[in-house]
Amino acid sequence: MISNPLTRAVRSRVRFWRPRAVLKALPEASGGGSRRWYSAPSRRGVSVMEEILARVVAPLPSYETRDKSPPPPESTSLEFMNYYRGLEKEDKVDFLSKLSQECGVDHKTVSELATKLLDTQRRDQATILQAEDRLRYSLTPRYKQLFSHVSRVEGGVKFLVDLRADLLEILASKASENPHIRDLNGTLKSLLSKWFAVGLLRLERITWQSPCEILQKISQYEAVHPVRNWTDLKRRVGPYRRCYAFTHAAMPGEPLVVLHVALTEDISDNIQSIVREFATLDAEEDINKINSAIFYSISSTQAGLQGVELGNYLIKRVVRELQSEFPHMAQFSSLSPIPGFCSWLQGLLGQYRKEGRGADLLSEQEWSEVEQALDSDAGTPPVDSLRKLIATGEWTRSEKLCLALEPVLMRLCAWYLYGEKRRGFALNPVANFHLQNGATMWRINWRADTSPRGVANSCGIMVNYRYFLNQTTTNSALYLQNKAVAASEQVLGLVSQFQKNSKL
Amino acid sequence: MISNPLTRAVRSRVRFWRPRAVLKALPEASGGGSRRWYSAPSRRGVSVMEEILARVVAPLPSYETRDKSPPPPESTSLEFMNYYRGLEKEDKVDFLSKLSQECGVDHKTVSELATKLLDTQRRDQATILQAEDRLRYSLTPRYKQLFSHVSRVEGGVKFLVDLRADLLEILASKASENPHIRDLNGTLKSLLSKWFAVGLLRLERITWQSPCEILQKISQYEAVHPVRNWTDLKRRVGPYRRCYAFTHAAMPGEPLVVLHVALTEDISDNIQSIVREFATLDAEEDINKINSAIFYSISSTQAGLQGVELGNYLIKRVVRELQSEFPHMAQFSSLSPIPGFCSWLQGLLGQYRKEGRGADLLSEQEWSEVEQALDSDAGTPPVDSLRKLIATGEWTRSEKLCLALEPVLMRLCAWYLYGEKRRGFALNPVANFHLQNGATMWRINWRADTSPRGVANSCGIMVNYRYFLNQTTTNSALYLQNKAVAASEQVLGLVSQFQKNSKL
Amino acid sequence: MISNPLTRAVRSRVRFWRPRAVLKALPEASGGGSRRWYSAPSRRGVSVMEEILARVVAPLPSYETRDKSPPPPESTSLEFMNYYRGLEKEDKVDFLSKLSQECGVDHKTVSELATKLLDTQRRDQATILQAEDRLRYSLTPRYKQLFSHVSRVEGGVKFLVDLRADLLEILASKASENPHIRDLNGTLKSLLSKWFAVGLLRLERITWQSPCEILQKISQYEAVHPVRNWTDLKRRVGPYRRCYAFTHAAMPGEPLVVLHVALTEDISDNIQSIVREFATLDAEEDINKINSAIFYSISSTQAGLQGVELGNYLIKRVVRELQSEFPHMAQFSSLSPIPGFCSWLQGLLGQYRKEGRGADLLSEQEWSEVEQALDSDAGTPPVDSLRKLIATGEWTRSEKLCLALEPVLMRLCAWYLYGEKRRGFALNPVANFHLQNGATMWRINWRADTSPRGVANSCGIMVNYRYFLNQTTTNSALYLQNKAVAASEQVLGLVSQFQKNSKL
Amino acid sequence: MISNPLTRAVRSRVRFWRPRAVLKALPEASGGGSRRWYSAPSRRGVSVMEEILARVVAPLPSYETRDKSPPPPESTSLEFMNYYRGLEKEDKVDFLSKLSQECGVDHKTVSELATKLLDTQRRDQATILQAEDRLRYSLTPRYKQLFSHVSRVEGGVKFLVDLRADLLEILASKASENPHIRDLNGTLKSLLSKWFAVGLLRLERITWQSPCEILQKISQYEAVHPVRNWTDLKRRVGPYRRCYAFTHAAMPGEPLVVLHVALTEDISDNIQSIVREFATLDAEEDINKINSAIFYSISSTQAGLQGVELGNYLIKRVVRELQSEFPHMAQFSSLSPIPGFCSWLQGLLGQYRKEGRGADLLSEQEWSEVEQALDSDAGTPPVDSLRKLIATGEWTRSEKLCLALEPVLMRLCAWYLYGEKRRGFALNPVANFHLQNGATMWRINWRADTSPRGVANSCGIMVNYRYFLNQTTTNSALYLQNKAVAASEQVLGLVSQFQKNSKL
Repeated sequence: MISNPLTRAVRSRVRFWRPRAVLKALPEASGGGSRRWYSAPSRRGVSVMEEILARVVAPLPSYETRDKSPPPPESTSLEFMNYYRGLEKEDKVDFLSKLSQECGVDHKTVSELATKLLDTQRRDQATILQAEDRLRYSLTPRYKQLFSHVSRVEGGVKFLVDLRADLLEILASKASENPHIRDLNGTLKSLLSKWFAVGLLRLERITWQSPCEILQKISQYEAVHPVRNWTDLKRRVGPYRRCYAFTHAAMPGEPLVVLHVALTEDISDNIQSIVREFATLDAEEDINKINSAIFYSISSTQAGLQGVELGNYLIKRVVRELQSEFPHMAQFSSLSPIPGFCSWLQGLLGQYRKEGRGADLLSEQEWSEVEQALDSDAGTPPVDSLRKLIATGEWTRSEKLCLALEPVLMRLCAWYLYGEKRRGFALNPVANFHLQNGATMWRINWRADTSPRGVANSCGIMVNYRYFLNQTTTNSALYLQNKAVAASEQVLGLVSQFQKNSKL
Repeated sequence: MISNPLTRAVRSRVRFWRPRAVLKALPEASGGGSRRWYSAPSRRGVSVMEEILARVVAPLPSYETRDKSPPPPESTSLEFMNYYRGLEKEDKVDFLSKLSQECGVDHKTVSELATKLLDTQRRDQATILQAEDRLRYSLTPRYKQLFSHVSRVEGGVKFLVDLRADLLEILASKASENPHIRDLNGTLKSLLSKWFAVGLLRLERITWQSPCEILQKISQYEAVHPVRNWTDLKRRVGPYRRCYAFTHAAMPGEPLVVLHVALTEDISDNIQSIVREFATLDAEEDINKINSAIFYSISSTQAGLQGVELGNYLIKRVVRELQSEFPHMAQFSSLSPIPGFCSWLQGLLGQYRKEGRGADLLSEQEWSEVEQALDSDAGTPPVDSLRKLIATGEWTRSEKLCLALEPVLMRLCAWYLYGEKRRGFALNPVANFHLQNGATMWRINWRADTSPRGVANSCGIMVNYRYFLNQTTTNSALYLQNKAVAASEQVLGLVSQFQKNSKL
Repeated sequence: MISNPLTRAVRSRVRFWRPRAVLKALPEASGGGSRRWYSAPSRRGVSVMEEILARVVAPLPSYETRDKSPPPPESTSLEFMNYYRGLEKEDKVDFLSKLSQECGVDHKTVSELATKLLDTQRRDQATILQAEDRLRYSLTPRYKQLFSHVSRVEGGVKFLVDLRADLLEILASKASENPHIRDLNGTLKSLLSKWFAVGLLRLERITWQSPCEILQKISQYEAVHPVRNWTDLKRRVGPYRRCYAFTHAAMPGEPLVVLHVALTEDISDNIQSIVREFATLDAEEDINKINSAIFYSISSTQAGLQGVELGNYLIKRVVRELQSEFPHMAQFSSLSPIPGFCSWLQGLLGQYRKEGRGADLLSEQEWSEVEQALDSDAGTPPVDSLRKLIATGEWTRSEKLCLALEPVLMRLCAWYLYGEKRRGFALNPVANFHLQNGATMWRINWRADTSPRGVANSCGIMVNYRYFLNQTTTNSALYLQNKAVAASEQVLGLVSQFQKNSKL
Repeated sequence: MISNPLTRAVRSRVRFWRPRAVLKALPEASGGGSRRWYSAPSRRGVSVMEEILARVVAPLPSYETRDKSPPPPESTSLEFMNYYRGLEKEDKVDFLSKLSQECGVDHKTVSELATKLLDTQRRDQATILQAEDRLRYSLTPRYKQLFSHVSRVEGGVKFLVDLRADLLEILASKASENPHIRDLNGTLKSLLSKWFAVGLLRLERITWQSPCEILQKISQYEAVHPVRNWTDLKRRVGPYRRCYAFTHAAMPGEPLVVLHVALTEDISDNIQSIVREFATLDAEEDINKINSAIFYSISSTQAGLQGVELGNYLIKRVVRELQSEFPHMAQFSSLSPIPGFCSWLQGLLGQYRKEGRGADLLSEQEWSEVEQALDSDAGTPPVDSLRKLIATGEWTRSEKLCLALEPVLMRLCAWYLYGEKRRGFALNPVANFHLQNGATMWRINWRADTSPRGVANSCGIMVNYRYFLNQTTTNSALYLQNKAVAASEQVLGLVSQFQKNSKL
């Protein structure tokens, strides 16, 4: 349901960055250095870069005069922005490396001040505080000032958001192994976190009355359940639907994170009933039929704001908004996709087959039902048939196979969501997002997304992450600190079935 | 012309804080401690404070989990805000002291990490960077997190602005000598600087069509040349006038800094012609008569944003705005008051008299003219007569006296503005403001503000700080770094007359 | 409570038109003609007028080509508007007379077509309908076309509203006895009625967030209970108050009719508690304390829209608006002034005295109480003392007199409101307005307006016209058709006391 | 270029009304009466109709009380609206017939008052005026009052616009021959003309920032050059384009008439270069390349406003708007389609063939060129080949044929536009529209619309009607009054070629 920052980064890399294969073809150009995967900028380019950096990144004022330094003229920031925008991708890597390395912290000063601080430990509080403050100031990278200046220029904040998107791509693609790049990214993220603090965001409800420009963007950004045409779009902002976005004063007309909500009687177990049903297009909402709010799509639109909490806050704000509009509304839940389930399953089946444990995932009874339904060639091993079936989605055309596979896929999916982890947190990025927010893994739904895409990604299964409002804070803390996943009996039941069968 | 932060703080102290006299009357209540100037909060109060702090200020997450900590529920922030708002002034001092002292930095961790950093100096870059980053993180006071959470709540940013206003008063009134308070103030100022970065501000032109709420505030905030009635107000947003303000998404309907501009043929030398002339109230602007933009009033409205640059950026933005509206506009200048000139002059005269140098400030010729015009008692020393004259403003009723005093007061004023310094910068706060911005001290104007207020503050003298757009950056840097004041020949001429006469 | 169109016309006449006395002084200038009360326009003026009329008022197209006539260029309308605006008051009368007389209906054509129509009476329906349509068309005055063209120009509608205000003044002041003027007025009124049909009006709620321009106008137009300052104004748009206006697309920023409402627990009997009470200025409205809506002021702002129903519709719209905001609100009532009561009373007393029936209005008991309280000169007849008392308002300072006069003034006032008629309808214009709307004369309130103005106009008495929503249509029809006044028992009781005592 | 009211009426008839053929199949149901083409409403229906009419259409008040009649309660109007909306198409005809016949003018009163008027002819002016006014009043149909009341209800004006669309369809389809229907239509049109007077309309510029609801409507209403997708739509409101609409306070969110303008260097001679060129989608407008405004599409959206001048006024307003945005803009012209040219041509060719004059339209030389290019069967007469070519549009694929036909089709088209008349005015509705507005028939353009639609309608030819601003008033008057067509030399040249060749 959330477009995962990781997938997003990968996707954009493909679109934007030179693909890995190409990079590998260029090693001889890198001069043996471990840092370069691309052609070196021309000599002239390098010297221009250095000139630019010298001009636009001012030295850090002394601690005493830190409040007495006039900002540089706006033209300096503009020069920096224009120069950077004009660079080729490869040169950007080089430039950002230089910036991070040469315009960061003065390590010598830092270590001197650290020594001084240690010397003051027996002194009075005021002296210690001052020594700490000087040390803290010395730990400010010079480029932080530059970013502050750029943020003041029209379009400057957007520029920095995009620059951070470049940084994330460099880090993800390992295009640079310069450790300073990571610092640069951290500094920029921390600044963006402040500029995009929730108190500075504006909640906008998007309706059919909103500017076309916004609605077109909403339409484009909707990657989870793509919008097909005007009517489709009108539906998503029409009766029994709500669409909210956060916008920001520094990026007017640009929705930063978008949440689509369906207002329903019960918690939905099927996405087509939400995005493909047009009966109510001109209906008046009947307030008595509205008991539940289903978050059926949430998308972040700015790659450069990865890690800056927005989606979580948007959901909370929208809950408040809906509660004030519908005081009796009691049920809040997502209806979320499970990207990656089928790939994971294919991997699992492949591994089992390799290990000769191909039969272990299904009970004998189940295998026989599958084989019967399959009517497969005598020679093919059943695991292979199953893998092929899942790859093609053809099982969905056979009622028998559907019946046979339902219990199998449901418990595998439950395990994938609940049991598969990465550094202790849910491997599935959508699950991780909602669990961080304090939601409960509530119900796994069979035949919930029957679109080709839904079948291909997750065998048509979707999941509700339910928001019990009085539990989200506790759940969130338990998950983030103890990695404990809140789940319903249905989910836990499926998980235990999986464990019993799979001998994992 | 700018309402000086210093005077402002003093003014608000009187209004808001327990006046000094009262504070002094209470030392015995403070139990001998050097820290308290006020009655101690009740025991119960203290324990409640501690409870609250324990509840609302979370411990700093470990470096590893710093991105994995869920924000506390909003109710925690609201509890903090409500508790603080409900405190008596004295208890606020106590509470902020506790907050700053007990929820700041963990000095032990800091010194450990400083030691570790020193140990890594010979290691590779990545290791050093990491050690620096850990040290930097350990230098984050815990209350900084609290403020971030508060900023997300509706009204939270405004709350923090007001809390900082309290801090500034405590610091100014020396109500607390706790050195941690200064750190608290620094941290908060740095956060506010980010939230009120210029890219996040919105320039609004205020007109007669603006909401009444805004216009009433504009009217109230205008301390420089007070607004008297509807017609007066309408005049200031009518033809040949502009009124601009910065507003901020987190404080809707609240102008943060307000700039009044008059559009004139020549650079104005008289304020009454701007604020008292109504001939043009319904006129259409004749673009051919508009060559100059006179900034005749600028006011900051939020005491808590002291030190956060807004006025400077507002002037720059408005210049751009005016240039785009009037492409041929070539002259930009303030017409500024000179608060403090008369007080300074009285002090000077008093001191000269004490030192027996009473005669030195005027030439013999001048003294004789003054005495002649005064027709004073034989017995009274002329310096005393002069002091009395200036105190009462009665000299303005005698043409002779006016003529006699003009050269004297003009050169004294030039010296006051140009030569009197505080830590090397202009003593006069309005001068300091414009010089920081890079303006030139351009023309001192006789009979420029003939209102009783103008006569009482500055003998009716006003000054133009002129903005030569291609020089402001240089001027600003020269002033802030070298304390060099850019001044016109007229000003320098008056200054040198003063020096010649006054034997200073 | 409503600013009566009649009084309004009178007021504006004084301001705008040449006062009657002056007009009377000029008969000899009029050359004996019955038409002129003012100096003749110069010969040149007259010929210019005729030229202008010839140019701007096109001949009526033939019936056949009536849809084939291109509108004149906009410049023609502008010429007409500028010419008219530039005329002196006296010349306007002359010009409008000419326009009405020379550019009206072609009487000859009308009588020919009337003859033809009579000839067709035995023919088929289609023929009769055609003859009627031709006749109807021939009855269109030529100036009606002119007005249509003018309405299309920017500012044209406002121009015509103001032109009609002039017409009404001419008719009221009898400045012209030209019968065509009345026709001109009728035509224009009928056009304005269409342009200001309620479907084309916009209801605006005025708040402290509304543009200052609107609020200043609201403040100026409030003639019933004048607004004194910002706080006063803020009060009237603040909590427990509502202020609504109709605006019109063709006159942007101009409230046409304004209604002030107080939201109260019970039906108010005192105006000071509404306009002078500031306790609630920043309060939050407690919905449980809001049971009644009190219309305490309604003002039409455009003299030229006299007779075009706006106030009636505004009240109805506002009732709907309030019902949707406060579904349980059950009581709707005005709290209205009684302009003219004191003047009427003085007239009555004067007449009684002349007729020697001075004693008849009060019972013996009452006279003796009044005389006792008065402590008057033996010689003065009590009626004269009473008249003087009322003229000065001094009786309000004596508790005794107040007590003695209360029953007397209350029953006289009830009679004035209920019994005094003009052409069968209530003489008091405010009563007439609310009775037309279908309100009930509900309660007469003693000491309801203790301001000097209130005492001088109506001895401090005010009246509630109550809107029983399910009765207004019937009441309105009964009043307009049968002249029947709906009144409460309190009012009828007072009226019958009056009749008993006064031997009318 | 304008969607012709006539075609429009026809189009909507097909969509909405029972098609002619079907109607004809039903004569026996009409009971022999000449009036009915449809099944009679049930008896119950009729009596309900009469009841409704009795209840909602009040009798005309007497002349004396005409200003003393309270409006009926709003519920009456709502009842009427709901009743009418619920009727079947056939019953609507019946109901409108009844309304027009039974609630019109009281013919008896009219003839009495006509008689009286004739009797007053020798009396004084005031008496005559009064008699005329009474007569005029008696000529007001009762349903006019009803419409006034309806217009006051929310949605009432839109209801009446739609009701008039029904009336126009009835008249066009001859579904009723009741002559009163025509009167009803005339009355309603006259009311609508007042409510939609230009002073009450609002000019809106439509941009990509406008509400999606509006833009979708713009897209739907664009019948001239249909919009295909988001990009296409964005193009039409993007750089070098303008899109304007009139809206009305009583029908919010509903564009009434829409004008699309292209800003070009020279007067465009090809529509594809306007609607299909996307090079400039994100360009910034270069003001130096903007010399001409090309009106390339204008559409009325409300069938019920036929005959109410809107398009004409919209063009004039837009010219003013453009002149103020581009003071140096000098050329204003349409680029208009020529609907009906091919049909007319086919008719002409058919007739010539019938009359045996098939050869007359082309010169011998031309015929031989066509035949050569055609390479047609020996047997087929060339006129038939030509007719077939034009019907299929196949000639456009042969360069030879294009060359051969160009002079022929151009002069025929010139004649069609310039010479073919209906009641003396241009037969082509778009020509008639622009000539009424005062435009000049300026240039006929070959290969101007190469879309299949353009080829099918007008052999790909389009025409510029040019607006010479200082001539439009004169041109308009000459055309409307003398039926004189202003045309350029190019057009006149082609016309004279046609006349020479065609022996017409």
